Formats: sequence, C-alpha cells, structure tokens
Amino acid sequence: MTVTHSHPLSSGTGPIALPPRPIREVETQFLKTGRSFALTEGKEIKDLTIAYETYGTLNEARDNAVLLFHAFSGSQHAAGINRHVPGLTVDWSESLQIGWWDDFIGPGKALDTDRLFVVCANMLGGCYGTTGPSSFAPRDGRDGEKPERRYGSEFPWINARDVVRSQALLLDELGIDSLRAVVGPSLGGIMALTFALEYPGRAKSIIPIATSHVANSQQIAMNFHQQQAIVLDPHFRNGDYYGGSGPSNGLVLARQIAQMTFVDQSTLIERSGSQMTNPVSHPSYRMFYPVESYLRNNAAKFVNRFDANSYLVMLGLWQGAKFLDMYNAPSFPDLFARCRESRFTVIGIDPDCCFPTSQQEDLHQTLREGGIDSELFIVGSRKGHDSFLVEPALYEHVLRDAVING
Amino acid sequence: MTVTHSHPLSSGTGPIALPPRPIREVETQFLKTGRSFALTEGKEIKDLTIAYETYGTLNEARDNAVLLFHAFSGSQHAAGINRHVPGLTVDWSESLQIGWWDDFIGPGKALDTDRLFVVCANMLGGCYGTTGPSSFAPRDGRDGEKPERRYGSEFPWINARDVVRSQALLLDELGIDSLRAVVGPSLGGIMALTFALEYPGRAKSIIPIATSHVANSQQIAMNFHQQQAIVLDPHFRNGDYYGGSGPSNGLVLARQIAQMTFVDQSTLIERSGSQMTNPVSHPSYRMFYPVESYLRNNAAKFVNRFDANSYLVMLGLWQGAKFLDMYNAPSFPDLFARCRESRFTVIGIDPDCCFPTSQQEDLHQTLREGGIDSELFIVGSRKGHDSFLVEPALYEHVLRDAVING
Repeated sequence: MTVTHSHPLSSGTGPIALPPRPIREVETQFLKTGRSFALTEGKEIKDLTIAYETYGTLNEARDNAVLLFHAFSGSQHAAGINRHVPGLTVDWSESLQIGWWDDFIGPGKALDTDRLFVVCANMLGGCYGTTGPSSFAPRDGRDGEKPERRYGSEFPWINARDVVRSQALLLDELGIDSLRAVVGPSLGGIMALTFALEYPGRAKSIIPIATSHVANSQQIAMNFHQQQAIVLDPHFRNGDYYGGSGPSNGLVLARQIAQMTFVDQSTLIERSGSQMTNPVSHPSYRMFYPVESYLRNNAAKFVNRFDANSYLVMLGLWQGAKFLDMYNAPSFPDLFARCRESRFTVIGIDPDCCFPTSQQEDLHQTLREGGIDSELFIVGSRKGHDSFLVEPALYEHVLRDAVING
Repeated sequence: MTVTHSHPLSSGTGPIALPPRPIREVETQFLKTGRSFALTEGKEIKDLTIAYETYGTLNEARDNAVLLFHAFSGSQHAAGINRHVPGLTVDWSESLQIGWWDDFIGPGKALDTDRLFVVCANMLGGCYGTTGPSSFAPRDGRDGEKPERRYGSEFPWINARDVVRSQALLLDELGIDSLRAVVGPSLGGIMALTFALEYPGRAKSIIPIATSHVANSQQIAMNFHQQQAIVLDPHFRNGDYYGGSGPSNGLVLARQIAQMTFVDQSTLIERSGSQMTNPVSHPSYRMFYPVESYLRNNAAKFVNRFDANSYLVMLGLWQGAKFLDMYNAPSFPDLFARCRESRFTVIGIDPDCCFPTSQQEDLHQTLREGGIDSELFIVGSRKGHDSFLVEPALYEHVLRDAVING
C-alpha cells in the first residue's frame, strides 16, 4: 500500500508534497509490567504499562539500540503506519497514523533500521497507551470498591526522572544494557538529557534536539499560562472529567498559546492565509483576523487527539525539570561531568521561538565546561521549531554521524 | 502634603525613588450628557456619562488644549492625587491615586500646565466612571421593569471611532474646537490615530507613543488568548457577574499573558527576583519559578482594580481597530492623507515587546507616503513598554517640542 505523508505534530503545514511510497504497517506493543513502579517522590504507580514500538532488529550483540523520546504531544508511534491503538480515550486520528518521525526512521534513513534497533515509548503520564491519567486506575479488591474508574485527579505527580526510569524498565525487559544513542527533540530532548544524567554511560551518544537544560522565562511563563487555561475550564473538574465533556475550551486555549512558539511571526501570517476559516462567534468578543481562526482551528483539531490531564503532566514534566535541584548538584558543569563516557551532539534550529538557539549554545558550552565531548549543530530553517518534524534532509547527516559513529 | 511617587500602570518596578514633592489634589469630573449616544454600528448608549479630569487652564483663545488618551488599563486620572472616584465597582486602589502620567503633566513638565490645558477622559467602555459594562443600565420606565442592574452582557459592541466621538462630545461641551495636540500611549495611541482620522485638522499635533496603526500577529494572538481566558472562567457568566464573584482567575490569566509583553525577558527575570513569593498550590500543577509567582502576584493585584468586561472592551477596541475597514480606504497612505493639516510625532521604545519599533517605523513611513509631516523618535530603554509611564526624562524634550511647536 502507499500513502501520502503528513505530519501529525506539525502545527499546520498540511500534507507535505512527497512522492507516495510504501510504508510498512506497525503495531504498538504493550509492556504490562504487572508490578508497582516506585516514583522518585515516594508514591507508586501500581501495575505500570508501557506502550512502545520498535523499528529494525536488535543485533546479537544487543548493542545497536537507539532510544527515542517523543516531543510534548507525540507518541510511541514514530515510524510506519499504525491504524489503531487500542484502549485510548482520545481519537487516534488520521493525522497520527503515520509515525511522527517516519521520514527520519527506516532503511537508509537518518536512523537507519538496516543497522539500528529504534525503540520509542509513550511517556509515562501520556495518553497513547502508557499508564497516565486517562488509564484505568487499578482496583484494590476491597469490598464496596467503586466501579472501574480512570485515574484523573488521582494520578500522582511525576517528574522527568520517573519518565526515564520507566523507559529503562522497558530496555531491561528488551535485554538492552547499553544504547548506541538516546535521541529526543523538544520536551523529548529534556528526557534525553535526564536519561544521560540518570544512567551515565548507558548510551554512547546523547542527541538533544531543539531543547534546553534550563527553562527560560518565556517557557516558564507560557507553560504556567497553559496550566491555568486548562484548570480554568469548568469542565476540567480537577481532572475527573472522564465520561463527561472534558475541558476542551481550556485545552484549546492552552494549545493556542503553545502554537505561538512553533513558528515565527512571518510564517504564522503566511500559514494563516488571507481569509478567516470557521470563525467562532462569541457574545463577548469578535474575531477579526485569519491568525485567530488559524490558531483556533488547529488547536480545536488537537483537543480531539490529546488528553487534558496528560497535557498537564507534560507541562509539569517540563516545568519540573530543574536538574540542579533534582540531582542536588552545585552547578551544571559539575552535574554533567558524570556523563563523560557519552558523546553529546546538540542540535538547534535557527530561528526557533520555542527553544531559541541561545539555549543549545548554552547547553553545549556547559557540557564542554563539564569536560564532555560535545558538538553543536544549528540548522537554519523557516519552519521554526516544527523543523525537526518536517525537514529530514537538514538533520540526516548529523544524526547519522552522531548515532553510527557516536 | 507630600507623597512618594509610584506608578499604577507599571508592571512592577515598585515605587520609583524620586524626592517627595507637593502634588495637588484633583477630582474626577463627570459630564452627564443626559442624551443618547449613537454608536457607529447603529446601536446607542442611553444617558452617556464621561468621567474626565483637566489640568491647567483653558486660555481665552481656547486654543491651548491637549487631549490625552490613556492606555489599556489606565484612567482619566493622569496627574495629581485623587483619593476617591465615586460609584466604581472596582477598587480605586492606592496605586491609582497618583495620576498615571503625573511626572509628565504639571507646571514646567513635558505637558506644561502653565501653558496648556490637558484633558483626559476615561475611555468609553471603561470602568473608572465613563459609561461602561459596569455602569448601571438606564431604566426604561415600563411597568414590571427589573430592579436596577448593571449593563454586563447588554453593553453594546463599541469600536475606536465610538471612543473618540464620545470624547469629541466632551471637547464640544468644554468649548474646545481646535486642539494643540492629541497624545496617546499604547492603546491610547491607537485612539490618537483614530481621532486624527475622525476629525482631520482638529488637532495641530498628533503624538502616538509606543503604538501602531496595524496590529501584528503577536498582538492579535495574545489579545485573542486573553479574551478566551476571561470568558472561560465559570464566574464570567457571559458578563453578568456583578453582585457575585467575578471571573478573577480568568482575568488573572489574561493579565499574566499581557504582562509578558511589558518588559523583555532579562528585565522580567530581574524583577522576579530569586525567590517565589506567595506561590499558589493547585492540585493539578506546581509552581517552580519566581517568574511564575511574580506574574501571578502582579496580575492578582490588578484584578481588584479592573473590571473584566471593561478588559474585554479594551481588547475589542484594539482588535477591532482595522482602519482600512473602518474608513473603507484602499491603503493607509490614502487614508492618512486626510490628516495633512496635522503634524505627527511618532514615538517608539527600543526594545518594546508589546509594540515593537518596527511598528512605529512603519507608521512613520506610511504617514510620509501619505504626504504627512511626520517625525519619528525612538527612545532606548531597559524598561520596555513600561518606559512611557516611568521615564519622563526620555520624552520631555520631544513632547514639549511636539506640543508647543507642533
């Protein structure tokens, strides 16, 4: 079969004009640990499940694996076509069915599945199959127990360390001791850094893309705004909205705020076009500009495919990734010094309104100060932060070198 | 009496260290027209009241008047000290009691009240005394009429033309045919431009400060986000929240979003300090950074002194100020050509994250193309958009020249 490529995480370029070509069908697999998973803050998640996919074949030496972390709104489905993921509360919409990094992963591609075994798991707290707020909470078996219910407000607070520790469990289960590389874009890059800190030496190569090790004030503020937008929605009900109408207006607003950072202003105007599409009418305000309808329509599509509680988890993972506090370290060079066995390839996009290149420059400099072998690559793109999803050619050589020779 | 200066519209510099000096007491005056005011879209406001203050003396020739428009969250109280404005639904908080441009208006100051007669009115739709959504709606005298109530959701849609037309009524009432100057910062600058377009030749000098004649995509989007934040709050009740708890969480979020544009990131970090102050605890998110508590605490103070419906009116005035549509004009140079009798002094701040200097450069260029006598001045300041409130020395010479010699 053949499909035309489109990119689920793009903030709206529409289908990319690539020639149709065969894509293989894949399925999400589920590691049902059947065990309780201890969180770093002391609580636990009973009966942890991890949804993941793999591409390529693990070699006999078990040393060709690459762990890939998805971005904020991504999933385990990074390559190939997956028509259905069972048990979700959100739409597995058509836009999600082609892997979010399909142009990057496959035979002969940047992550070459003729040579590599790529593992991608839905982050803990996500909404695509790994245990998260929309998962059914385990029953305690006591008399008078309530009927089956989803976690909602009872999903415990998690941080980036919990995410990477849950994925290390998956690696253990797959029999992978050492990794060729850990790769992650955006929020996934924060996870790649966390993995490097949590498991020093376990990966030869660490490849954080369009990300940072310290949040800047714009990121902090915009994440904070988004948290408030979601909880403000009367349908949020402190997170216990399953079975009712969820906080879609709050999530639309949160996503709209986030979208402002995906591309620069000129690209935003270009994408918005010259006409309003489906303008909403509200008694208390009017829409006047195509930018408004563009942002709103994109965000409205998004809320069908993402869970508001998982959105809050992702925001919390980002805000909470204060590495010096997490690891009780005096400085970043001191902290990263533990990662000297790995080689870092820091990649940035210029311009990137979400994670500006100054952050990647800062990370690279910090790593060097910590005695780490680090290289910095900045790709120029008019796609802004979206570039890492839609412009494989810009990353192919750097990624290939970093993974194969890392 | 003496007071220490502080600046109500500053986004948080705190009191400015100026030597105490005498400030005169002033009172807001009310023009109760007792008449119906026809809006440009066809509806009307019955029984229009305009709250205003004046500084200095109108000369015998009645040709020394300056009309000053306040910014988004400002008021008619521009200079001196005013301890009380009767009839408000919001706090006339201490921070408002010293005029928002007191350092700019007075004997010997940039707007020299030894020579000028300065008029400043609360904008139509505002919450400081001019008829707005929080005003009592007129009773229709029919049998069975409901008890006295505030406009709320029944306040009609207004645009920038309605605002300047309402203030022209005030000028008529004061016997002022021609103005020495019209001055306005930020949203007030959009009103100054509207006044110039609506009443060509009525003012010798037009002085728009840190403003623009066309909204950019960031302004459009951030205004749109703020509108949604307010209406999302379950306490908003479509605007009919008077007598109950208003949409304070929605207004806090809106104001937080706006605050992001008042200063640049480095100043924001500097102001936020190194410690969180009064962090809020919410079951669904945590606060991690001083930037969060800084933004929230400032916004929380703001909501006590501003009405959410008026906030929506101001957002609507800004979003709706599409001059080409309003005046059915083919281009901006064509449109502004009608203002050739006036001299424009366009002032910008570098850097200004709210109204970037590119917008003032664009306005200046457009005016010149329309055959207008325009001068452009860009002041450099680390205060960002706030500069026009807190750094009189930067504007004094330009303002004085533009008004006196305009």
